[in-house]
Amino acid sequence: MKKIEGGVTAAQGYQAASAAAEIKYKGRTDMALVYTEKPAVFGGTFTTNVVKAAPVHWDKELLEKGNPVHAVVLNSGIANACTGEEGKTLNYTMASEVAGQFGIQPEQVLTASTGVIGMQLPKDSLVRGAGLLKEALSPGKEAGTEAAKAIMTTDTISKEAAVSFEVDGTTVTVGGMSKGSGMIHPNMATMLSVTTTDAAIDREDLQELVSSAVEDSFNMISVDRDTSTNDTYLVLANGAAGVTIKKGTKAYEDFREALFHVSTELAKKMAGDGEGCTKRMEVQVIHCQSKEKAKRLSKSVITSNLVKAALYGSDANWGRILCALGYAGEEFNPERVDLTIEAEGESLLLFKDGVVTGYSEEKATEILGKKEIVILCDMKEGEASATAWGCDLTHEYVNINADYRS
Amino acid sequence: MKKIEGGVTAAQGYQAASAAAEIKYKGRTDMALVYTEKPAVFGGTFTTNVVKAAPVHWDKELLEKGNPVHAVVLNSGIANACTGEEGKTLNYTMASEVAGQFGIQPEQVLTASTGVIGMQLPKDSLVRGAGLLKEALSPGKEAGTEAAKAIMTTDTISKEAAVSFEVDGTTVTVGGMSKGSGMIHPNMATMLSVTTTDAAIDREDLQELVSSAVEDSFNMISVDRDTSTNDTYLVLANGAAGVTIKKGTKAYEDFREALFHVSTELAKKMAGDGEGCTKRMEVQVIHCQSKEKAKRLSKSVITSNLVKAALYGSDANWGRILCALGYAGEEFNPERVDLTIEAEGESLLLFKDGVVTGYSEEKATEILGKKEIVILCDMKEGEASATAWGCDLTHEYVNINADYRS
Repeated sequence: MKKIEGGVTAAQGYQAASAAAEIKYKGRTDMALVYTEKPAVFGGTFTTNVVKAAPVHWDKELLEKGNPVHAVVLNSGIANACTGEEGKTLNYTMASEVAGQFGIQPEQVLTASTGVIGMQLPKDSLVRGAGLLKEALSPGKEAGTEAAKAIMTTDTISKEAAVSFEVDGTTVTVGGMSKGSGMIHPNMATMLSVTTTDAAIDREDLQELVSSAVEDSFNMISVDRDTSTNDTYLVLANGAAGVTIKKGTKAYEDFREALFHVSTELAKKMAGDGEGCTKRMEVQVIHCQSKEKAKRLSKSVITSNLVKAALYGSDANWGRILCALGYAGEEFNPERVDLTIEAEGESLLLFKDGVVTGYSEEKATEILGKKEIVILCDMKEGEASATAWGCDLTHEYVNINADYRS
Repeated sequence: MKKIEGGVTAAQGYQAASAAAEIKYKGRTDMALVYTEKPAVFGGTFTTNVVKAAPVHWDKELLEKGNPVHAVVLNSGIANACTGEEGKTLNYTMASEVAGQFGIQPEQVLTASTGVIGMQLPKDSLVRGAGLLKEALSPGKEAGTEAAKAIMTTDTISKEAAVSFEVDGTTVTVGGMSKGSGMIHPNMATMLSVTTTDAAIDREDLQELVSSAVEDSFNMISVDRDTSTNDTYLVLANGAAGVTIKKGTKAYEDFREALFHVSTELAKKMAGDGEGCTKRMEVQVIHCQSKEKAKRLSKSVITSNLVKAALYGSDANWGRILCALGYAGEEFNPERVDLTIEAEGESLLLFKDGVVTGYSEEKATEILGKKEIVILCDMKEGEASATAWGCDLTHEYVNINADYRS
């Protein structure tokens, strides 16, 4: 498997476009399109929130029907959530306007929206946007990057990742884009991710891979605290590479690895771009009884306001880490836990077998002053492990969210 | 039932004291004692955190044995959590030094600590403190208030509540104190609460009442996000009033009401004193299918960083409220929910039957600018309801917690 440049246009047969349709923002692009002339089977996972945006309902219906699609159209600025019947109609307009441009059916166009909840999408923007997207469509890497930028909201950087691998001498590529901050937000930092591949794969197999990929990537960043109404992860496979991925083969394992790598890279980029965050936190729980338990423990630490605020202050407040493990709802023996912090190759043991070590606070502060911090929790009770990603809690986070909509 | 002044010394037969023992702080009181010469039966509830402080283990043991007690000794500054065997020994010292002053057994003295995790209590301070507490002991209201002050950490106000009611012409009193911020913290804003009553009651009946009282009060403030290693709620009943409370009588119902009132008042005071908070948020979920469901929904809103930050900015971001309801893990129909904000007698309907109302943003901002905000979520599906209390998320919260220990 080889890391390569690019995103949704990295795989063969995919084109992308972005447009300034003035959905809500002025002077920036706010619509994006991913298109494949060769129809693609697709898999997807969506928000577990009871409150689901119109595009989520639409995509879920199409996923159940299971017919191939040609495009994904996305917009930023307005989430089209809590918009009632009018919202459903406008989401259909978004799909049908794009379909009209390509002479395909609306049911062959997936949709995704992110932005303010409760506002209606302006119909004229959707119409104009569809035309602009058709004109701007290009297979180039640049077009993929521009699409990734068009779906940004409070993101500070666009997020892409791509890898390729060989199957009997033929190159297969998996590439994707996503938007969303480490602390996923219900109305502006929704997580949206579109991944494309030129492999051919049975759609049930693809869905199975998509569902498990999300578990170890997007579901392991600190989203569980505020699960968006719009979270959407779509993977399209158009078979343009001429390689079919069959279960039980090495190609399947390679494809699996490629898909997991792209989703994990995108997840980590989101965690590192948390609203107002100054550093990324990676929490590894190792030697745990079960993977599920390790996941719950690592997520509990990653989402603790106290751990996040201490990280912001570069304060080695190991008590808060141990405490967050303690209220995860899992049994363990605190007298056995070891806590270590790591950054840039340096590591420091803070807590061992139930008591604090004689660590140097200066050293701890130095390590916590880095940009990418690892908190290692050794449970010393088993073989399972899990990793979660998050970020610190800062003044800027409060600034961004105290008066978001103005 | 009549609200009265005072706290732990309001009921007959109780004395209180505070002392500056220099546990960790200098120039302020940091130890408190509640004493009753007449032995008291007691009930208690403690943190659910897997990581429990030494005093929590001690009190739980005494609760299991079920023998009457004479005193509760508390300290602030150091939590005596994650302190291993030495911590257990020092907790025993804390109890036995007080016991020595009164010629009673260490097992007749309950303990509670709050402060930094991982530090050991200084033995000489415990010894000196016990003597000072004995000297300062007084039945006056002032002594109770001073005790409430001595256990404060990041609290900005001391917290007391008391009520009395009549049983066949005899006055029965229930009074208590607590410390802790609305956003309960693992290492400094632990919730500690001691309530006293001069009623006589069977200890099983008392424990049953204590366990249910905590469910609707202390467990309904936003503690579930960061559950302390030290959270402790103790209720002592010494029978000094000469009235015995028997199950199935009106006296029992009156006592129940009194105990619930005191615990709820103390809980609300904690919510309103959240670290760095500028306003209190009360979330009422009404017309819900079940009480458990209403509790989970209200807690989900009260603990959402996004709702809390929006409240700080007086931003009527109803989308975040609906979203927080949506990820509570409960099923409901978003198309039926109504959201209303209230403050100082004014109220404003923001969201009705799945869509936003034409409410005035100015009016909403005006209401959210008040000090005590009520968010009313009408599920329109049943008869159950629940109320949770919390506060806003502010810059000051980040200041307090970004570098707490220095």
